[in-house]
Amino acid sequence: MALKYYHAEPVANSLKSMIPLKEKGLAFESVYVDLHKFDQHQPWFTAINPEGQVPVLDHDGTIITHTTVINEYLEDAFPDAQPSDAPLRPRDPVGAARMRYWNKFVDEHVMNFVSMHGWHRMIGVIARNIDSGDFEKLLENIPLPDQRKKWATARSGFSEADLANATAKIEYAVDKVEQQLGDTRWLAGETFTLADINFFSHCGMMVERMFPDMAIATRAPRLVDWRERMTARPGVAAALSGEDRTAPGLRTWTGHVQ
Amino acid sequence: MALKYYHAEPVANSLKSMIPLKEKGLAFESVYVDLHKFDQHQPWFTAINPEGQVPVLDHDGTIITHTTVINEYLEDAFPDAQPSDAPLRPRDPVGAARMRYWNKFVDEHVMNFVSMHGWHRMIGVIARNIDSGDFEKLLENIPLPDQRKKWATARSGFSEADLANATAKIEYAVDKVEQQLGDTRWLAGETFTLADINFFSHCGMMVERMFPDMAIATRAPRLVDWRERMTARPGVAAALSGEDRTAPGLRTWTGHVQ
Repeated sequence: MALKYYHAEPVANSLKSMIPLKEKGLAFESVYVDLHKFDQHQPWFTAINPEGQVPVLDHDGTIITHTTVINEYLEDAFPDAQPSDAPLRPRDPVGAARMRYWNKFVDEHVMNFVSMHGWHRMIGVIARNIDSGDFEKLLENIPLPDQRKKWATARSGFSEADLANATAKIEYAVDKVEQQLGDTRWLAGETFTLADINFFSHCGMMVERMFPDMAIATRAPRLVDWRERMTARPGVAAALSGEDRTAPGLRTWTGHVQ
Repeated sequence: MALKYYHAEPVANSLKSMIPLKEKGLAFESVYVDLHKFDQHQPWFTAINPEGQVPVLDHDGTIITHTTVINEYLEDAFPDAQPSDAPLRPRDPVGAARMRYWNKFVDEHVMNFVSMHGWHRMIGVIARNIDSGDFEKLLENIPLPDQRKKWATARSGFSEADLANATAKIEYAVDKVEQQLGDTRWLAGETFTLADINFFSHCGMMVERMFPDMAIATRAPRLVDWRERMTARPGVAAALSGEDRTAPGLRTWTGHVQ
């Protein structure tokens, strides 16, 4: 039984499946994919994942992609490797449904909107620092049409209307989470699940820092408390301690750059 | 053990969880929600689903929403009620991951884009037939901000750029499915799964009719063969035979109106 995890910095997608690996105490080989060098579009990587995206889980040669799918796969393949408090996917059908409701909400209504602001602030700088001939070549290497568009838009800049819409989506999500945390200790109920890992990785860990205008401390105090409980978990802390090769001046998600 | 299913016409979301109920042979009470009368925004319905959307599964008083979540719930709650050929969610972890990969693709890259064309052609007509004062009142009753926007946009008309982008997404999906069906008999492998049900309900059943310019018969002959195999299944046929109260002149998804 050999697990290999291809990933970038400990944030967003790459963090989202790293946390379950650590929380479940599974041994795995870590393979760093350097997004700053566009490793994810190179032939060695697209031979592993034709979509050219991190992260990727390799389990004895079987390739699993997309973090929500990877995290459910880890539950199916290693049901007994669990943190001491509760399984990451509740074993009762209703609990699992609550978890999947939140996973779906984060996947469809949160992830891309925080990502847009991160791309606007950080990837835009990287993209504009590439000469236009080289940029065209870079685009040609990107397998997914949507990703090609996202890179091109990052270079030219996302529109104010799109950014404002993204901000509104994030505010809606913050308020929804705050309300839920008034009813239950964790997002999907009384136990820590994959839903918490999902929202934390894509929004909860960085929302206060990236969006100071939202005044998260006063608007969403339960979210702040929940975030502290997340980072206090040894598995989460271990995942967060992974290497970060992002240039310090570009750490929009992982550092203090707005 | 009592199941109740709140649904509209046998197409898209409402069809997507009706098929598993029929394929699994589960007894349930059918509750028709008349979208043409905006039942889904009325207090009796938002008391059941505060998001004001169909379908909804009520299992002994526990409410489950969102079709991908409902369909996984039915697998968790009724693992032994299965069609004779194979379980709707594969029991091996890799098979389940393949199924979830396709579910995620349909949920995030297909559903909303076919839906946009349907709303443009059909809901737009309905929305424009409402007096503007009544339309404002209708909007006020819609709980989800995104749905309010979608209704307002349907009335004013989706932009040509958005419609063209949606068409490109559907073409990409059709070609991806066609390629997959060259490798495997069904979308997620050799057996019929929830992934087939998902793509069929949101795109496969109506794509040839709604988008004649795509020339599906020549572009995607394996998809046509797959669609025939889908509709030949007694469970799928039973779900499709449900009542359709859409005015004949508006049957964009379910009839022959372009």
